[in-house]
This record gives sequence, structure tokens and C-alpha cells, in this order.
Amino acid sequence: MKQPTTSWMDRQLLHALRSLLGPVPVALVLRDAENLPNTDAPIVGTVRIPDRSTLLSMVVSPEMGFGDAYSAGRIQVEGDLVRSLECVCQSSPRVRNWAWRLRSKWFDWVQANTIRGSSRNIRRHYDLSSDFYQLWLDEQMVYTCAYFPTPDVSLEEAQEAKMDLVCRKLRLRPGETVVEVGCGWGALAIYMAQHYGVRVRAFNISHEQIAWAREWAKKAGVASYVEFVEDDYRNVSGHFDVFVSVGMLEHVGRENYPEMGRVIHRAIGDSGRGFLHFIGRSRSQPFSVWIRKHIFPGAYAPTLRESMEVLEPQNYCVLDIENLRLHYAKTLEHWLARFESAFDTVVRKYGMDFARMWRLYLAGSIATFRAGNLQLFQVLFAGSRCQSIPWTREHLYVPDLLETDDELWTRAM
Amino acid sequence: MKQPTTSWMDRQLLHALRSLLGPVPVALVLRDAENLPNTDAPIVGTVRIPDRSTLLSMVVSPEMGFGDAYSAGRIQVEGDLVRSLECVCQSSPRVRNWAWRLRSKWFDWVQANTIRGSSRNIRRHYDLSSDFYQLWLDEQMVYTCAYFPTPDVSLEEAQEAKMDLVCRKLRLRPGETVVEVGCGWGALAIYMAQHYGVRVRAFNISHEQIAWAREWAKKAGVASYVEFVEDDYRNVSGHFDVFVSVGMLEHVGRENYPEMGRVIHRAIGDSGRGFLHFIGRSRSQPFSVWIRKHIFPGAYAPTLRESMEVLEPQNYCVLDIENLRLHYAKTLEHWLARFESAFDTVVRKYGMDFARMWRLYLAGSIATFRAGNLQLFQVLFAGSRCQSIPWTREHLYVPDLLETDDELWTRAM
Repeated sequence: MKQPTTSWMDRQLLHALRSLLGPVPVALVLRDAENLPNTDAPIVGTVRIPDRSTLLSMVVSPEMGFGDAYSAGRIQVEGDLVRSLECVCQSSPRVRNWAWRLRSKWFDWVQANTIRGSSRNIRRHYDLSSDFYQLWLDEQMVYTCAYFPTPDVSLEEAQEAKMDLVCRKLRLRPGETVVEVGCGWGALAIYMAQHYGVRVRAFNISHEQIAWAREWAKKAGVASYVEFVEDDYRNVSGHFDVFVSVGMLEHVGRENYPEMGRVIHRAIGDSGRGFLHFIGRSRSQPFSVWIRKHIFPGAYAPTLRESMEVLEPQNYCVLDIENLRLHYAKTLEHWLARFESAFDTVVRKYGMDFARMWRLYLAGSIATFRAGNLQLFQVLFAGSRCQSIPWTREHLYVPDLLETDDELWTRAM
Repeated sequence: MKQPTTSWMDRQLLHALRSLLGPVPVALVLRDAENLPNTDAPIVGTVRIPDRSTLLSMVVSPEMGFGDAYSAGRIQVEGDLVRSLECVCQSSPRVRNWAWRLRSKWFDWVQANTIRGSSRNIRRHYDLSSDFYQLWLDEQMVYTCAYFPTPDVSLEEAQEAKMDLVCRKLRLRPGETVVEVGCGWGALAIYMAQHYGVRVRAFNISHEQIAWAREWAKKAGVASYVEFVEDDYRNVSGHFDVFVSVGMLEHVGRENYPEMGRVIHRAIGDSGRGFLHFIGRSRSQPFSVWIRKHIFPGAYAPTLRESMEVLEPQNYCVLDIENLRLHYAKTLEHWLARFESAFDTVVRKYGMDFARMWRLYLAGSIATFRAGNLQLFQVLFAGSRCQSIPWTREHLYVPDLLETDDELWTRAM
């Protein structure tokens, strides 16, 4: 039997896909037809598309079409997957067409972060199974951007450095009370109690994570310092010195930012300090529909302007914002490397489609952080009557300053 | 002849003024009537009001009434002027009534920052006379917030430290080109050329300041590296590696932020770096009407959210934001102390009303920065294709890192 060859129509579709992508140094191959970019840059990857219907789905809906076909193993990418995706991100492809926008609006609606919607969205991702995340996260199960003092430190060291950076930015003092919302498997809450002697009340609506965190706090001997509460951040009660949220604002939904501000104000009033760490953007746009469908239902990455809708109505004073997007790319590189090492196990336990889907998610995330389509913001803020404002940020980088030169970074009038 | 005593009406007016101010620890005295706050806090100042019409003007229009009567010497403040004003700021007084809002709208209109309006507004303040500013600024005539590595360094050191901090945040490299808008008397432009070997094109519409800056660049031997252009920022032409603006956004007018973004993008494109240093706020509100009338016509202090209207439409990536409001309070303390030392000279040259007006402006500014009604934001940003992003901020605080460990803070992938 003769191998089917590409028709005029196939070549037109390849051409259409190319014009959506722009001159990225990635070859598009459909059977015996190859479409090369009009560029001198060396080709970094080759996308092998098996048939016209897959190609058509990529032309109509590039992000979903590619993502789903890649997960299903219908599309193969030869060469450097991450670098290929990064080049696509950098070329600002015109892939957000009417079909994309329609789907995005649909997700806005069906994945809205109401109390019940958030619970469904969060359980979908974080209750997947701690066993799965253990395959590729660090020992302490920290599932947010790490901080690499130098690019070559290990993931374990970088996650610990991140937790310590958060504590130093907040200048935690023994005996203070902290409320954390969206506490993951509890690493930060436990770290703060162990290393800074604070009492923490940590909220999370993922049952699986809370159970894990409670167990771990017991083992670590800090169960009396850290209380894990399985509840929505909107139900936070009590008064605290400090508010912390690391990697949670992405799940709040923009329509709820003013309410999040009121929750924070109820918790720490005008005299407390607070910290938000979240994935953001330079320019406002909806989150990837493919990721919202398969990985993070209800996710949204705000611009700094949008994130201020949490803080400004409460008159919170922003003290410091740091962008760590290259650190998130590096963190994801570690996760992807560990994921690849455990790939066969993932396939055995969860199936090939699932494994390829998560590989694409991790690789695509490296690409978007590298290319600058996503940012990672750490925002430190204080209440309008907070009198404990650091004089400079030097104590973050010169550790001895913390203990020896306290007067330098309280209000020195 | 009998001393006029206070009537029932006077006491009612004193009471009305008190209820506007709230329980601030400041005594209000009209002839023989004294109104004390309902607070246990020790009294920090006494405001002596001479007559009913002055008191009435303060009740109707507290900010203008007090400011004008203080300048005219009709009101005396005994005790600590700065602390008294700070307590008033902290109590969030209800002084922005209908009269205030009406006047504010009027200033919005007559002081609008059109090309001609900006020219008028800026000349009004900065062309006052360099002799006047020399009486109380530092030697280098830096008229923006300084950076005090420790609170006790001199104003001269702190201004130099600020200029160096700006250069380090921007990671200036010899041979790079910089455009500065709103360059004052030229200190930063000259510093960048002298210490970092860059070529600077600096814009300002104050004739007096530009003339001074050119003279100084010649004396400093950097006239071939620094070009001072007497023109509006909207007329910036040429392509540069770096954009800098220190203490200028306050004069741009919020309606012009998108245009300012386009000017920046024209100058540095998607691959450059930029820096904005400006007086801001935690919550959106118009600038003091008294200051807009007498000191800074057309001024506006944006919130971070508002300031992003400059950067977001151009897809600029915010790398770092630092709030230096306590440093501005400290800077103003130095200025006020020098101003008080030169008070008699100011009176002799410019009259008593002018001298008291400027004393009130400086004292009031210390109070508002201390109380947190004003903030000072330094925003570092980069174009979406800028590949030179520092790995961490450690190089700002560990100076040796700058030369020896360069690879640490370029893109370390």
C-alpha cells in the first residue's frame, strides 16, 4: 500500500500554521511536507504532525490543538522541547483567535472561584495525590517558585532559601502570630514556626494537603505552634501580626481581589505586615486555556496593576516588590528534570497521556517564564499604621545585620 | 481698652474645627478660648488663631485656610510644627470637603500638564532662582529623595548614595547611552557620566536649571558626555539603552501616563532598561490644593496601580520596586534644618510670607512622608526582550559583586 502523501490542502494548512506562529526556528513536518521558517536562526526543534485533522485542529485552535495532540502522543517534538516553546512564546504568535476567546470566556464561567468553585478547582489539582508530587518536588514538597542565591544551588537549598527570604522580608519575630492562606503541604508554615518562633494558622481547602501538613507538623514537633485549617481563605478569623500568601493569588480570581483585601484587613488591620507571592504578567490577558482545562482550573495571573486591587482599597503601603521570574524558570527546570527521571513511574501509575500532559505543562512553564510571558512577583506591604518598617533592604543580603544592628531597620527618625 | 473675648460663636467654630481634625494632640487657641483634644497623648503643639475670620476660613477650607494664614503670619504654631502636622496627617482628618474638591477640580483644569501648561508649571517652581535652592539643598543641588545607607550619614553622602543606587539598579555599563527626563540641575546625569562612563542626553524645561547644568558639566569636564536639552519630555528623540526619570512623574499629569509610556518605548524599545523614581500614594487621591496653589502647580502623586498605566501598555516587565518614604522624610528633615539656618536670609531676599510658606511646605512634607500619606517609589523595569536581567538584588548591597561575579546577575539559564 502506498504511503499517503501531502496534498495542496495540507501544504496550505501548514502555511497557515506557520503564519500564526511567525518565523520561529521550529520546523513543521506533515508526512513528506516540511515547512521551514524564514529565518537564519538554527532550527531548535521539529514538530511532527501525523495527519490533516491534527494539523487542522492546530490551525483552528493552536494552543488546545497542539496541547491535546501532544498529550495524546499524536504529535512528536524532536529536538529541544523547552527551547522550541520558548521561541514560540517570544515571537508573540497570533494564537488567541475567536475560538480561543470563546473557550476562555467559557472557562471564566464554569471555573469561577466562588466558595464552591474554588473548592472544586483546588481539589482537582492539589488532591491529585501527594505520591505524584513526591516524584518530582523537593523533599519538603514546596510547590512554588524557589529562590536561588546563585543559579547552581540545589532545589532543596533554593526552596529553603526562598522560605527564609520570605521570613526575612517580613522580619518575623519570636512570639508573633501569622496567618497563611493557601499553605500547600505546609512547608512554609512549619519553617516559620521552627526557625522564627512564630505561631501560624494556615488555611487550605485541599484535604490531601492539609492531612499531610498536620502529620508533618507533628513529626517536626511544632504541632502546638502551627494549626492547619481546612477551610477557604474567605473564612479566615482571628487577629494576627502578619499575613502570608505564597502561590495562592493565582487561584483567587480577579473578581475576588477586593474581597481578598477585606480578608487581609480583617486579619491584620492597619498595623500588620503582609506578603503576597504570585505568578503575574506585564500585560493583562487571560491564562492559557489548555492549562485551565487540564492543569489549573480557574487560574489567573494578574498584572501588578490588577494585583493592587487587593491592597489599595485597604490603604496598604507597598514596601518592596521583587520579580523572580528567572528563578521560577530555574525551579521548573529542576522539576522537569526530576519528572523526566520519574517518567516511567508516572506512565505506569497514571498513563502515558497524563505523563505527556504534565511534561508539556512543565516545559511550557519554563518557556513562558524565560520568555517573560509570565512573571513572579513578591509583594511586601504594611498597614497604614505599621510602625515597623525596615530602613533599607540590606538585611536581606547581609545576614548579620538582622541580629546585630536592629536599630538600622526600624523607623529611624 | 478691653481685650476682645471669645463669644459662643467662636467656641462653636473651634469645636467644629476640632471635629474635623479628630483627637490629635494639638491645642487650638483663639484668644482666651482653648480647645483641647479628648486624648491622653501629650500635647505636641499649640495653634494660636488670632480672630474669628481666620478660624472660619480654617473650618470652611482647613488646608487652604491654615496654610495661607500660617504663611501670612496670622497663625502661630508653638511646640513642634512637624510633629503637630504629622499627628494631623495620621488622624485622617475630614478636611477634603466640597470646597476642597471644587478647588481641586479647578486646579486640575487651569494647571493641566499640556506642553504649554507643563512649561508654565515647571518654570513657576524651578525657575524660582537657583540662589534660593542653594540656601538649603546639598552642594550638588539634588532636589529629590536621598538614600541614607544608615540614618546618620550626611545629606551630601546620602544624595551621592542615591545616585549610585540608581546607577547600580540600572547596571550601567561604560559606553551605554542614557536618556534622562526631568534632570533638575543635572547632578544625576553628570554623576552617571563621571562614575559609569555612559553618554547622557538629559531633558528639562526649566531654563534656569538647564543653564546651570550646562555650566556645571563643563566645569566637571564631562560636557562631551552629557548633553542638556531644554525641551519637553514628549519631544525626546533618538534611541538609547536606558531611560531614567527621577522626580518627574509627579509633574506629568495622570492623563499623560500612556503618552509617557509611548515616549519611553520610542526611546528604549523592547530591549532597554528603565527607571522611574516618584512620589506616590497607597490610595488614590488628588494632591494637596495648598501645595498645588503655591508650590507645585499641576502636581499629582499616583498610586502604584496608576503608575502602571505608563508601563503596562508597553509590556514593560517590572523587575524591582522599592519604597523609600522614610528616606524622603529624612531628606526633608535635612532640608528644613538648612532652611531654618538660612531663614533670615530667605526673609531678607524673598519676604516673610514666602519664607513661612516654604517652611510650612517642608515641614508638612516631612509629616506626610512619616505618616505614610505619601510614598516614594523607585521602579526598575525592562523591555520584554531585554536579556540583561540581574539574577538577584544582592549586588545592590554587596558592592564587590558588581565587578567580580558578573555572571551571577546576567541571565543564568
